[in-house]
Amino acid sequence: MKRFSASHVHSVREAIGRCRKLIRERGEASSAAAARSTLASYLALDDGARERFFDALAREFSPAPAQVLEAARSYSEDPSPPNLLHLQEVVEPVRQELFRRLNMAPGGTAALVRMRQLVLRGLPQHPRWRVIDDDLRHLLRSWFNRGFLTLERIDWRTSAIVLEKLIEYEAVHQIQGWDDLRRRLAADRRCFAFFHPQLAHEPLIFIEVALTRGISAKVQPLLDIRTEVVAPDRANCAVFYSVTNCQEGLRGVSFGNFLIKQVATELRAELPNIRRFATLSPIPRLRGWLLGQRERLTSGAQGEAWRALFERLDAPDWHRGDAPAGAESLLMPAAAYYLTQLRDGAEPYDAVARFHLGNGAVLERLNWMGDTSPHGMERSFGIMANYVYRLNEVERNHELFVNEHRVLASPSIAQLAVRAAPWLGEAARARRDSA
Amino acid sequence: MKRFSASHVHSVREAIGRCRKLIRERGEASSAAAARSTLASYLALDDGARERFFDALAREFSPAPAQVLEAARSYSEDPSPPNLLHLQEVVEPVRQELFRRLNMAPGGTAALVRMRQLVLRGLPQHPRWRVIDDDLRHLLRSWFNRGFLTLERIDWRTSAIVLEKLIEYEAVHQIQGWDDLRRRLAADRRCFAFFHPQLAHEPLIFIEVALTRGISAKVQPLLDIRTEVVAPDRANCAVFYSVTNCQEGLRGVSFGNFLIKQVATELRAELPNIRRFATLSPIPRLRGWLLGQRERLTSGAQGEAWRALFERLDAPDWHRGDAPAGAESLLMPAAAYYLTQLRDGAEPYDAVARFHLGNGAVLERLNWMGDTSPHGMERSFGIMANYVYRLNEVERNHELFVNEHRVLASPSIAQLAVRAAPWLGEAARARRDSA
Amino acid sequence: MKRFSASHVHSVREAIGRCRKLIRERGEASSAAAARSTLASYLALDDGARERFFDALAREFSPAPAQVLEAARSYSEDPSPPNLLHLQEVVEPVRQELFRRLNMAPGGTAALVRMRQLVLRGLPQHPRWRVIDDDLRHLLRSWFNRGFLTLERIDWRTSAIVLEKLIEYEAVHQIQGWDDLRRRLAADRRCFAFFHPQLAHEPLIFIEVALTRGISAKVQPLLDIRTEVVAPDRANCAVFYSVTNCQEGLRGVSFGNFLIKQVATELRAELPNIRRFATLSPIPRLRGWLLGQRERLTSGAQGEAWRALFERLDAPDWHRGDAPAGAESLLMPAAAYYLTQLRDGAEPYDAVARFHLGNGAVLERLNWMGDTSPHGMERSFGIMANYVYRLNEVERNHELFVNEHRVLASPSIAQLAVRAAPWLGEAARARRDSA
Amino acid sequence: MKRFSASHVHSVREAIGRCRKLIRERGEASSAAAARSTLASYLALDDGARERFFDALAREFSPAPAQVLEAARSYSEDPSPPNLLHLQEVVEPVRQELFRRLNMAPGGTAALVRMRQLVLRGLPQHPRWRVIDDDLRHLLRSWFNRGFLTLERIDWRTSAIVLEKLIEYEAVHQIQGWDDLRRRLAADRRCFAFFHPQLAHEPLIFIEVALTRGISAKVQPLLDIRTEVVAPDRANCAVFYSVTNCQEGLRGVSFGNFLIKQVATELRAELPNIRRFATLSPIPRLRGWLLGQRERLTSGAQGEAWRALFERLDAPDWHRGDAPAGAESLLMPAAAYYLTQLRDGAEPYDAVARFHLGNGAVLERLNWMGDTSPHGMERSFGIMANYVYRLNEVERNHELFVNEHRVLASPSIAQLAVRAAPWLGEAARARRDSA
Repeated sequence: MKRFSASHVHSVREAIGRCRKLIRERGEASSAAAARSTLASYLALDDGARERFFDALAREFSPAPAQVLEAARSYSEDPSPPNLLHLQEVVEPVRQELFRRLNMAPGGTAALVRMRQLVLRGLPQHPRWRVIDDDLRHLLRSWFNRGFLTLERIDWRTSAIVLEKLIEYEAVHQIQGWDDLRRRLAADRRCFAFFHPQLAHEPLIFIEVALTRGISAKVQPLLDIRTEVVAPDRANCAVFYSVTNCQEGLRGVSFGNFLIKQVATELRAELPNIRRFATLSPIPRLRGWLLGQRERLTSGAQGEAWRALFERLDAPDWHRGDAPAGAESLLMPAAAYYLTQLRDGAEPYDAVARFHLGNGAVLERLNWMGDTSPHGMERSFGIMANYVYRLNEVERNHELFVNEHRVLASPSIAQLAVRAAPWLGEAARARRDSA
Repeated sequence: MKRFSASHVHSVREAIGRCRKLIRERGEASSAAAARSTLASYLALDDGARERFFDALAREFSPAPAQVLEAARSYSEDPSPPNLLHLQEVVEPVRQELFRRLNMAPGGTAALVRMRQLVLRGLPQHPRWRVIDDDLRHLLRSWFNRGFLTLERIDWRTSAIVLEKLIEYEAVHQIQGWDDLRRRLAADRRCFAFFHPQLAHEPLIFIEVALTRGISAKVQPLLDIRTEVVAPDRANCAVFYSVTNCQEGLRGVSFGNFLIKQVATELRAELPNIRRFATLSPIPRLRGWLLGQRERLTSGAQGEAWRALFERLDAPDWHRGDAPAGAESLLMPAAAYYLTQLRDGAEPYDAVARFHLGNGAVLERLNWMGDTSPHGMERSFGIMANYVYRLNEVERNHELFVNEHRVLASPSIAQLAVRAAPWLGEAARARRDSA
Repeated sequence: MKRFSASHVHSVREAIGRCRKLIRERGEASSAAAARSTLASYLALDDGARERFFDALAREFSPAPAQVLEAARSYSEDPSPPNLLHLQEVVEPVRQELFRRLNMAPGGTAALVRMRQLVLRGLPQHPRWRVIDDDLRHLLRSWFNRGFLTLERIDWRTSAIVLEKLIEYEAVHQIQGWDDLRRRLAADRRCFAFFHPQLAHEPLIFIEVALTRGISAKVQPLLDIRTEVVAPDRANCAVFYSVTNCQEGLRGVSFGNFLIKQVATELRAELPNIRRFATLSPIPRLRGWLLGQRERLTSGAQGEAWRALFERLDAPDWHRGDAPAGAESLLMPAAAYYLTQLRDGAEPYDAVARFHLGNGAVLERLNWMGDTSPHGMERSFGIMANYVYRLNEVERNHELFVNEHRVLASPSIAQLAVRAAPWLGEAARARRDSA
Repeated sequence: MKRFSASHVHSVREAIGRCRKLIRERGEASSAAAARSTLASYLALDDGARERFFDALAREFSPAPAQVLEAARSYSEDPSPPNLLHLQEVVEPVRQELFRRLNMAPGGTAALVRMRQLVLRGLPQHPRWRVIDDDLRHLLRSWFNRGFLTLERIDWRTSAIVLEKLIEYEAVHQIQGWDDLRRRLAADRRCFAFFHPQLAHEPLIFIEVALTRGISAKVQPLLDIRTEVVAPDRANCAVFYSVTNCQEGLRGVSFGNFLIKQVATELRAELPNIRRFATLSPIPRLRGWLLGQRERLTSGAQGEAWRALFERLDAPDWHRGDAPAGAESLLMPAAAYYLTQLRDGAEPYDAVARFHLGNGAVLERLNWMGDTSPHGMERSFGIMANYVYRLNEVERNHELFVNEHRVLASPSIAQLAVRAAPWLGEAARARRDSA
């Protein structure tokens, strides 16, 4: 158990005391000053003290049960406007008002986004902090409303302070320094990000696009800085090859859906020769899942072939040199099955599929050896997926997905999945049951 | 009773239907499209249809009493995070989520600000709309949080689209066209406004400042476009002679307090020779109140003098030519009494006094014939007040005001008020009782 | 003769002394300081002193004849690079170096533009100032090179400081205050101006465009602020109805030619529905010229009709009420003749025709009662001209104009001119001879 | 001798033909189009063709000697304004008008700056190109007049497209990639550059400044990216440690003098705690010069000591490990002598000294082992100089330098130089004679 010095106790008590005072402040100008000092005392807490601070925040700033019950009773007896207003006031945790006021301090928004990041990281150990997370998420969703965001194009003219954040944040296909970045911002690439007026120089989410001839099947050529630059007016496809959420503290405040559609709209206006909008996407957990099915696969119809394959797959660098016989003809159907059949509840199990299909895209193609980086091999045996956005169909596709849980895939994908059904049929069913 | 055509009924039903659908939308991108169309169908309603729409909005989108009561019971039995979250979800009117989603549409924020304006105007006739107002105010206060506002200087380099709004909105001392405006933005004047990123070209509040030698006692010279321009580096006072809230739909979302202090800070940085920051303020309801005291005043100690004065005051233009004997010596003490003694609850009765004293200013001086415009004569017999902001004292003054309800005034004002006490003492007491 | 005080003499001498010192300065930083003080002493001169200053500037800063002759001899004997450089140095008036250095001072460019304006105004009285004008024009043409100018759209979002300049400068169709201006910047209008980085907030030239259905024949409806606004996407013509050069000091540094073509290009990009680009132009000196032909006209073929017409034209407001018989059938052919046949040297006599035809436009149509304002009646009996710019033909038309002096006009204009030939044939010939 | 294909000949002929046509163009709009195509045909020339093009440009576009002589005669007989204007027109090479018109094309200014760079590089082999250089320098000095430049602060918020230019151009102390650059733009550093509106994203010159406590004596700590960042408000000196001219094509168009003073002014406004402005400067040719004096030095008063020293100096890395006896006590006086006594004509022989002393700075201190990089050792045995700018004295110092050729140095420097006089006295005299 952590030991706690007297000075810790004191600093936490002081910070909490200022929070209380801040909530009580009347007169908005003075509460701006109080917000500044309250924020400062919170930011001065060290890790241990901050944990205690969060404990207090979760414990002491929630609505009083008795008051809530009484207000609910009044309202259920007479649902009049005053009773409703009173009920809402009583039910809303004062934490929310506290956060609203902290937001007035310079740097307040950034500090609250960061606070939520810390709360989220600590949640597994501190389940009671969940009320803090609830309140912050509620407010941040309101403040980071789509209406307040601006889409900006990122290119080599952009400020270095923003560009270095791209290098820092990009997680799907890591950026190897400034030369790599410059290639990703060359004439045949596009990059767009959402910004919020309160978080200057801080992208919230960004997307990287390659302008290509034909839909890219492999990601390594896109990432190779020596790849020749294509004249943008000769390109006919826009390939979205990376989407990165930058702010952990904004988890659950989704921007990605807007982003892709707005970017597609911008690109169509800028480059009328672009006919197709597609992704080149990872399949993050395919390998993990498939290894979990080893027993079922090796004991089924093609059990022998699978057994031989699994042995080869155990070797590092199995894909170098001679590819193991049957690798492609076994793994590709399995991947198609995984993406189209496997569910988590009613929705696709794969998070990337869920995202793009939910946006109205269609699963178009699977690419063997699409990503041969160690990361790519580890995620999905190097297989990548293309999801295609047809702008005049996305709305309808989205409806089918939401209302009928339809997973839209091209015929070739569907056929692949059919081949895997005998080997894996129960896996999907099993998942469905457990969901 | 208003008659209502079938097409009206239909359009309202359709708008409400879209609202319901918008709330149900999952997937934020599609709800952006839905937000656009919902907003459009609301904006297309004519006046009568809009009233019905508000009726439905007030009636149908509030929390269900039974659900509320049950959630409150669960919470009061076990105030756990999930129970709290559930309680909040149940208690929050879906109207709020509706408004949040409408805010995603282009022009959404402006439309909601305008919606609240219409709701506020209709409240006296439609008291049940208050729940709409409550929800909008709650959201607008969050979205127009001080942290999201930017202070901008307005001068003759500013866009005409903003400048014409000043002409339109200025209510304290009307702007008589572009020549008048240009004088108010000349080298010895300053004008600042708060803007919100979502309301381009729309000032939320603005303040007009004159740089003067000595604190101005009269407003007409400040407003006269022929008044010679003072070199700003020769000025030693900044006189705030007009503050205008521009957006009726943001009533109760206060900006003024921040504004004055931030402007004072800016001015001090720009012009180190400015030593004093003071207002030249109206006393809006002095005349109305004093006429209401006619009986008491004419029957008291100086009854005779008051009677004679009241007779003169009945005449239009009483102040032109020979001022009636005793006018100043009776009215000035009464004004001092009105500002310092008269209360509404614990606070000053006069709204302007309440605002500046609450901000930490001090009532410094009263000015006879400070505003001889018809408007000024009608508000306060032409008397104006100077409130002084001493930047290093405002914090302390604010505390005294909030905690001890102290009305801080200069000794000379205090003495004036003492003279009026015998005539009016019970008036203040009466008010206090009724509060 | 003007008397000149001793202090005048002193201030001129000092200013000229500083000019000399400025030229001698080595080290550019110190000459920047010297430029500032030299400029200040020039700007402090009053009208009389400034005249003397210009006299000295014209007299004393020209190249020395003997030196010039010697350098020319050396160069003609041996046209080597050093001899050429030396020749140029000797021939260039030091005035030019003086102006270049003055240009380094803050506000230097604006002061030199203004200086040239004053020199131009004084030229008739002071012909020797022409050398100053020559030098300034030489430099200003270099500094106001097209490459340094930026085209900016002017609309209601533009700064008031720029907008008021439009009101001040517009000469073709005066702007009657801010309401008039706002109409001219409404959705169915466009306004563009050239700016130079050194003259902030100062348009060099601006053009006003109306988006219309069909080419406008009359200017009054365009100028009427009550004219309904046309949806820009329903317009099919862009009518350039006013071009204003703003800076008298930049006379001879032409921008208009670029302006029209660049504006046409911008408009075509913004509004693909615009098919035709045309002017609605005045015919500035038609009336003056025609009155000068009274004798010839009244003694020719239609002499009787012309005599009757001239009598009516003498009356003010002759065009109100019943138009005089034959007015249109006589004046319109005469106007066509004036525009297409009358020359000044090889070029059209009419300055507006010269400008647009030289730009590659075609004279398309004449409009009876096109401008019924007093100004319009006085210039050209109210007749206006449409010149049409066909973007794919302007280059060829321009060549024909420059190389073959061809005046391109529509067939209907040509026919009109033919009708007037018998009456006026010798007038054009006479002009041609005198040229 | 270079062989020249027919197609080369053709392309040069075509480019020259277009140049001629461009000069003949009347009507500025058409010459804008012609400028574009002329520029394009020039830019399409390969290296060999471009040389021929320059030959033709030098040969054919100069004034005609006979015409010049005649115009000079007329002027010397009657120096009237028309004769002066005619003379100037005849003397000005049409090349200048050609360049002025090329400047109208998009990218024209940049192309001409680049053209001059190529001409300058070719001058040694092609002395007749000097006339091209003369004309370009003449125009560029006019176009890059101080009044047209803007000073901009460069920091980590600056566009990457500008920042990479710093990395590319910095010559004094090379920038080792982006991490190095970021350190040079940290909170205790300042960087400023001049820009011209026509050369977007292209710094003309930039200066790097370190905010320090005390005047830096050694450059390595300033360049070390691990050096801790000093809080800028704790610094009391601004050390200019690198000035880089970026555009070879603007050689002789000096910006540096303005730059330092304007930057000092900006810094004083931003950071009132900065008391001293000093450089930490290289002594570029000290070593080369001193090695040339070997014979004289080894045969004079301290000949023995010098001989021993020279032997050690021959070894690479002589300064590592034990420094050779007497190195500092011999080299430092020699350096002081070199900087203060050695002349090129009336001016200091050392270009850096000439620059700073000419700007009004004072040579304050010499620093032993101030720059121990290979480059620094090679230039000046590692010795560096501090020049100090005292803002209220620079004007006077500049005058002393220009008028009396005074080299201002601190007493300690003067004493050092005195010690070296017996060894080197004749060296300075010799230089003076040869100048």
